[in-house]
Amino acid sequence: MNDIEPLLEQIRFDAAGLVPAIAQQHDSGEVLMMAWMNRDAIAATLTEGRACYWSRSRKALWRKGESSGHVQHLKDFRIDCDGDTILLLVDQIGLACHTGRRSCFFRAVADGGLEEIAPVEKSPEAIYGDGA
Amino acid sequence: MNDIEPLLEQIRFDAAGLVPAIAQQHDSGEVLMMAWMNRDAIAATLTEGRACYWSRSRKALWRKGESSGHVQHLKDFRIDCDGDTILLLVDQIGLACHTGRRSCFFRAVADGGLEEIAPVEKSPEAIYGDGA
Repeated sequence: MNDIEPLLEQIRFDAAGLVPAIAQQHDSGEVLMMAWMNRDAIAATLTEGRACYWSRSRKALWRKGESSGHVQHLKDFRIDCDGDTILLLVDQIGLACHTGRRSCFFRAVADGGLEEIAPVEKSPEAIYGDGA
Repeated sequence: MNDIEPLLEQIRFDAAGLVPAIAQQHDSGEVLMMAWMNRDAIAATLTEGRACYWSRSRKALWRKGESSGHVQHLKDFRIDCDGDTILLLVDQIGLACHTGRRSCFFRAVADGGLEEIAPVEKSPEAIYGDGA
């Protein structure tokens, strides 16, 4: 990876030093999840060729798939017109969602409520072990 | 539209009362843009069947396409596992991006820099008039 400073200068981080990143399956177009990146997560993503985020809950770099094996191999890294959102085209190994579904967007509005539109493919216990 | 309070209770708004919303073309899967919604924008979107956002720069409800005609007709309204991101499946009339491109994500990392991967289809002046 070349020097990424020129790229980082194009990105508008928020007051917390973060920028939202959408992960999309590169071939099917399915939107898998949205998470947050800081400068280190962007650098790690581009250097390692896999999606890395900033975990706001754990306050730590989060190499997606590190404990589950559900890695997102990077296919393309895009930014939007005003540089405040990232779109990652990835090849998702396994499942993106910690609930054991392919995508995190498995709830849809129906009749004013929400209905689940995708099944659990693997239980969180099976993904993360009993410590999940 | 039925009472949307039960839906709103499932959504985790940030400290500013906002939640990020991804707009995706419902048939092609193309990710068009990301913007922000507050409670009023969600209510307007569901009531009117078209994407409405909260404009952080103008501090006002933003009915997408109001001045450009580039409306996003709502096809499906989804939320993610932890309720802090919305995914709108829409039918985008015309162009999503104020630069005159179909999608806001028209810049991709290449050789450590950024390259434009989509053309301007219509100039901003032609979309918004000289006052753009």
